[in-house]
Amino acid sequence: MPQLAQMGVSEMKAWVINHFGIDELSLEERPVPSVGEKDVLVKLHATSINYRDLMVVEGTYNPKMKLPAVPFSDGAGEVVEVGSGVTKWKPGDRVMPIFAQHWFDGDPDAEIRKTSLGAGSTWDGTLREFAAFNESGLVASPSNLSYQEAATLGCAGLTAWHAVVESGGVKPGETVVTLGTGGVSVFALQFAKAAGARVIATSSSDEKLGRLRELGVDETINYRTREDWDKAILELTGGRGADHVIEVGGSGTLPRSINATRFGGHIAMIGALTGAASFNPTSVFMKAVRVQGIYVGHRRMFEEMNRAIEVNGLRPVVDSTFWFGDVKLALHRMKERSHFGKIVIDFENEK
Amino acid sequence: MPQLAQMGVSEMKAWVINHFGIDELSLEERPVPSVGEKDVLVKLHATSINYRDLMVVEGTYNPKMKLPAVPFSDGAGEVVEVGSGVTKWKPGDRVMPIFAQHWFDGDPDAEIRKTSLGAGSTWDGTLREFAAFNESGLVASPSNLSYQEAATLGCAGLTAWHAVVESGGVKPGETVVTLGTGGVSVFALQFAKAAGARVIATSSSDEKLGRLRELGVDETINYRTREDWDKAILELTGGRGADHVIEVGGSGTLPRSINATRFGGHIAMIGALTGAASFNPTSVFMKAVRVQGIYVGHRRMFEEMNRAIEVNGLRPVVDSTFWFGDVKLALHRMKERSHFGKIVIDFENEK
Amino acid sequence: MPQLAQMGVSEMKAWVINHFGIDELSLEERPVPSVGEKDVLVKLHATSINYRDLMVVEGTYNPKMKLPAVPFSDGAGEVVEVGSGVTKWKPGDRVMPIFAQHWFDGDPDAEIRKTSLGAGSTWDGTLREFAAFNESGLVASPSNLSYQEAATLGCAGLTAWHAVVESGGVKPGETVVTLGTGGVSVFALQFAKAAGARVIATSSSDEKLGRLRELGVDETINYRTREDWDKAILELTGGRGADHVIEVGGSGTLPRSINATRFGGHIAMIGALTGAASFNPTSVFMKAVRVQGIYVGHRRMFEEMNRAIEVNGLRPVVDSTFWFGDVKLALHRMKERSHFGKIVIDFENEK
Amino acid sequence: MPQLAQMGVSEMKAWVINHFGIDELSLEERPVPSVGEKDVLVKLHATSINYRDLMVVEGTYNPKMKLPAVPFSDGAGEVVEVGSGVTKWKPGDRVMPIFAQHWFDGDPDAEIRKTSLGAGSTWDGTLREFAAFNESGLVASPSNLSYQEAATLGCAGLTAWHAVVESGGVKPGETVVTLGTGGVSVFALQFAKAAGARVIATSSSDEKLGRLRELGVDETINYRTREDWDKAILELTGGRGADHVIEVGGSGTLPRSINATRFGGHIAMIGALTGAASFNPTSVFMKAVRVQGIYVGHRRMFEEMNRAIEVNGLRPVVDSTFWFGDVKLALHRMKERSHFGKIVIDFENEK
Repeated sequence: MPQLAQMGVSEMKAWVINHFGIDELSLEERPVPSVGEKDVLVKLHATSINYRDLMVVEGTYNPKMKLPAVPFSDGAGEVVEVGSGVTKWKPGDRVMPIFAQHWFDGDPDAEIRKTSLGAGSTWDGTLREFAAFNESGLVASPSNLSYQEAATLGCAGLTAWHAVVESGGVKPGETVVTLGTGGVSVFALQFAKAAGARVIATSSSDEKLGRLRELGVDETINYRTREDWDKAILELTGGRGADHVIEVGGSGTLPRSINATRFGGHIAMIGALTGAASFNPTSVFMKAVRVQGIYVGHRRMFEEMNRAIEVNGLRPVVDSTFWFGDVKLALHRMKERSHFGKIVIDFENEK
Repeated sequence: MPQLAQMGVSEMKAWVINHFGIDELSLEERPVPSVGEKDVLVKLHATSINYRDLMVVEGTYNPKMKLPAVPFSDGAGEVVEVGSGVTKWKPGDRVMPIFAQHWFDGDPDAEIRKTSLGAGSTWDGTLREFAAFNESGLVASPSNLSYQEAATLGCAGLTAWHAVVESGGVKPGETVVTLGTGGVSVFALQFAKAAGARVIATSSSDEKLGRLRELGVDETINYRTREDWDKAILELTGGRGADHVIEVGGSGTLPRSINATRFGGHIAMIGALTGAASFNPTSVFMKAVRVQGIYVGHRRMFEEMNRAIEVNGLRPVVDSTFWFGDVKLALHRMKERSHFGKIVIDFENEK
Repeated sequence: MPQLAQMGVSEMKAWVINHFGIDELSLEERPVPSVGEKDVLVKLHATSINYRDLMVVEGTYNPKMKLPAVPFSDGAGEVVEVGSGVTKWKPGDRVMPIFAQHWFDGDPDAEIRKTSLGAGSTWDGTLREFAAFNESGLVASPSNLSYQEAATLGCAGLTAWHAVVESGGVKPGETVVTLGTGGVSVFALQFAKAAGARVIATSSSDEKLGRLRELGVDETINYRTREDWDKAILELTGGRGADHVIEVGGSGTLPRSINATRFGGHIAMIGALTGAASFNPTSVFMKAVRVQGIYVGHRRMFEEMNRAIEVNGLRPVVDSTFWFGDVKLALHRMKERSHFGKIVIDFENEK
Repeated sequence: MPQLAQMGVSEMKAWVINHFGIDELSLEERPVPSVGEKDVLVKLHATSINYRDLMVVEGTYNPKMKLPAVPFSDGAGEVVEVGSGVTKWKPGDRVMPIFAQHWFDGDPDAEIRKTSLGAGSTWDGTLREFAAFNESGLVASPSNLSYQEAATLGCAGLTAWHAVVESGGVKPGETVVTLGTGGVSVFALQFAKAAGARVIATSSSDEKLGRLRELGVDETINYRTREDWDKAILELTGGRGADHVIEVGGSGTLPRSINATRFGGHIAMIGALTGAASFNPTSVFMKAVRVQGIYVGHRRMFEEMNRAIEVNGLRPVVDSTFWFGDVKLALHRMKERSHFGKIVIDFENEK
């Protein structure tokens, strides 16, 4: 493959935060990144939106974030150029960048955490046509997924994998509870089913509960008509409680989640959609539950998840796909919080 | 339900080892056991044969075993009477005895190991029409299984579960290797598939390999035509090696199993069908593999396995079913070692 | 040893809750318990007070608790009689009852949890001269401890062990934070030091901090003069944070505990002395901490702790010792919450 | 600090394998390595010998090893120069290279394993005055150790730490068995004691057993006068068996090690000094032991070990110290296999 420069490609488009706010996002021309000795240039074909990305764009993630910045951390694309010292990849490989570029395994330290993409650190995000990464900062895309599907994995997919498989070690026959139909929750139910678990899912919409059942969920609870959904879970588990709750709600839902969990069970704490609330930790120790904070995941987990996706033929659930130029519409869609699965940004096809 | 004594049932049939040897087994009349305060009387409907049972009958398991003894440890039946202090079970419940009657959780000590059924200890085995167990020595049968199917679980099923799930912690997408088509190996592949793994299975028979594929095995290797089956596994895993090998062969197959395992992988050591052999442990530490001895399992694992069987609708693979009166034929079948799955003894239906 | 009845001992003294309140406790004569086939009669020599016991006596633990009841769960004594079927113990053995009489290993279910001593369940507590236990409900006392010392272990000691060793898996060189000078905290620092850890302890009293240093604590923080004790911990760990916090305060201290913990660290949640408070779980998942509820512990842990006490020559820290007849004074001492270590009740020596 | 080149230092001494054999080692002049953007130049002050190094020098480790090569993997020294992009180190820092330069955490793959020092791979070893490492391939030396002491840690120390702490998770009160007085075994007993364990050590020399007791070993066994040392261990553990055996002997000692281990215990398989031997794996699964292969360790473990050494004031046991020029004498000392602890090579002080 000829070098991009030889092909006359030297400019690319990127969405840039100069001021916070969805409608402040600015589409700019930038030079295609140059490639160092150990670097890989990737032509990105798709990305997807996480709640974190919305917060970054609106300035609520880190109000002191250094601007200008290119947001978003998910991405899937194709290697178009490699540095002279690169051994791991070659042009044409289908790849995804890892969330924190220096996080390969184990617990990250503060330095490693600064290498996450798309939050105004040294690393610009993935809402641009080309990006260069060190060869160690990429993983291969699952062979059974399109770019648009692969672009959903890096943050939400990996967070769900981390919660269900790495932290939860979910075994066949265990009961896993998921809350709502956001990206992480839908991935979590897919991974839990792949691991042989029984899944109980909640939503406020009977229509969405129907779609959850189509995805293989065993039991559904409408938490609007059944406000004491924790008791419903206890009933569905013969009074024993669930083995795992994938908790995306935060303080608002945590007391019910603990109540729905068995003695010695596991609560994967992922999000705080409901904000701060009063919390009495007595139930945590009286029931000896484990509340495990989950923060995305490292490269080894990402590779393991990809193998699981291939072996089990899993397909990410895409709520909707927006063209690169329509990213503001996509962010407004995320803000409504009525999505089911992932909101994808497709770089290729204007609709 | 009226007491058995009131029904005039006071005698039962039992197969007894007075002298070692399959054809020395003796069918005898024995009194139906009486029920203590915390005991449960079970009418057994089926059992199944494990290699251990054959060794017990032939006197090679423990030549100094106390005789006479009733062999076999697997069993499935129905509660027919309970002691005055029993709270956990009621007549009509479908139950299975646990392998070692005092092994509930954790590592067993020497005292606990003496409570295993059917090896001439204090506890007579299950090759008899009725048996009394402390209420803590039983688990409920999976609701989706017949007595004949449930009777396959107690030893082979639980050993496979222990290897794959408890020790292996098999994750979706990992590669699990099984050797041959004995009871443990077939259960292991079923549990590995339920856990979302990719399974590679070996056999010396193409016909059996075909049946393995029907059970969901992803890749098969005929170790007769492909003697270097370890290399075949390396090829099938892109040179990386398998994550888990369920090793039932012993010293004869262990070197190839280690070679087929990835750095840091897991070998569940279950059997020693091939006897002692020279072994160089260098490969164990150079590849940092974990060789984990597996010895059946405890009650908590048994309960977890049963939930997994129900949730995933798993059905044990029965090689053949013999009537209670034909147990000698069944033992000869086991001795041939050409079975595929479990050899069941049905107490009810003379064929 | 002659049977107690033959010795003319048929009555014993017991403290009984008929009405809630420390000063409502009633000293009564009761028959010495009789011994069933598998039972062991223990002459108790000492017990100690846990915060739970104070709550039980005052009626705040479970206002609906069945009365009358004998409170307290800790105990150390001597076997004086065994049932005909007992194989594990003989008269003269020095023993301690386990907290929940049916909890031997693994996660307890609801049935098992009902077998805890001294909270008005079926099981009367240890504030009495004799008690009978099934042989499986006892462990041997560490050979290097007096009855008075051993009597501190069953609840507070085991809770600390559970937090530090079983849940924490504390490794040499890790940093463990303890809060205050209650029984659990002092045991936790002793076990953490025995495991080779660095311990940082807090207290509001410089005098107590001095005593903590004498016990081997590496660093101390007076949280009265250093209200931002979490920052002090970050400073003492080079900004990295502690590996483990033994959290006895609850919602009031939890936010600072999380702040003082490293990314991926462990918070053992044991108590809720400070009551409910507002809590934002964002920090739990942003720092990926594990908040593990700790509820006393099972027999296997108790045995392991006892071995550790013997091997390392550990001695429980006794705040004060009260005579059996002065138990109300002892409870008032607990209520003041100015103790350092354990408050012991000695059955033998009137002072 | 001025650049070395500015100081006129451009040459250094290195021991080079051109042909296999201790006495074939050749002392040569080589240019001081130049420093890339992310590299750190280290002036090495000491190294130490591992059995692997002897095998490398004699050509038995890998007969096809690429020559010429500089052997040895241990090292301790001082940063003298850093590349322009280095942020982690500065001149004057006391550092040690990690064994495999790309192994930071988790299980290594084949690529990572090729980055081990001193075995003829891309990476030359540490038997030279200066070496350049990527900044990620170094850890800080424990502040309480001299260069000569720190130089013992990289391979033997880390292997022992991996076995005792990472794989074994040794808890206070557990029993750990060490075999002989080689470097790994002596480190293992020190770490096991730091972790609060009881240690039983074997040797063929009463004089060495005396020195082991001075190091804190609780019980010693002379395996020359007590050939059935496995039974001696069973006696010392009340028939229960040890929790952990640090197995450096291989097939020759493995059967006794298994016999000396408790049901469910852990055997850390590190070496194969005794060569191949017949092995019957029946005992592995009948006792459900875990045989865990241990292969040195990664950077995270190295950092954790260093903290443990500082917190517990541990000092490596040095058998003998040879001057850099006398490395052949030191290798012959290793070959005798009568050492106690580590054989150090000091680069500074000719004796």
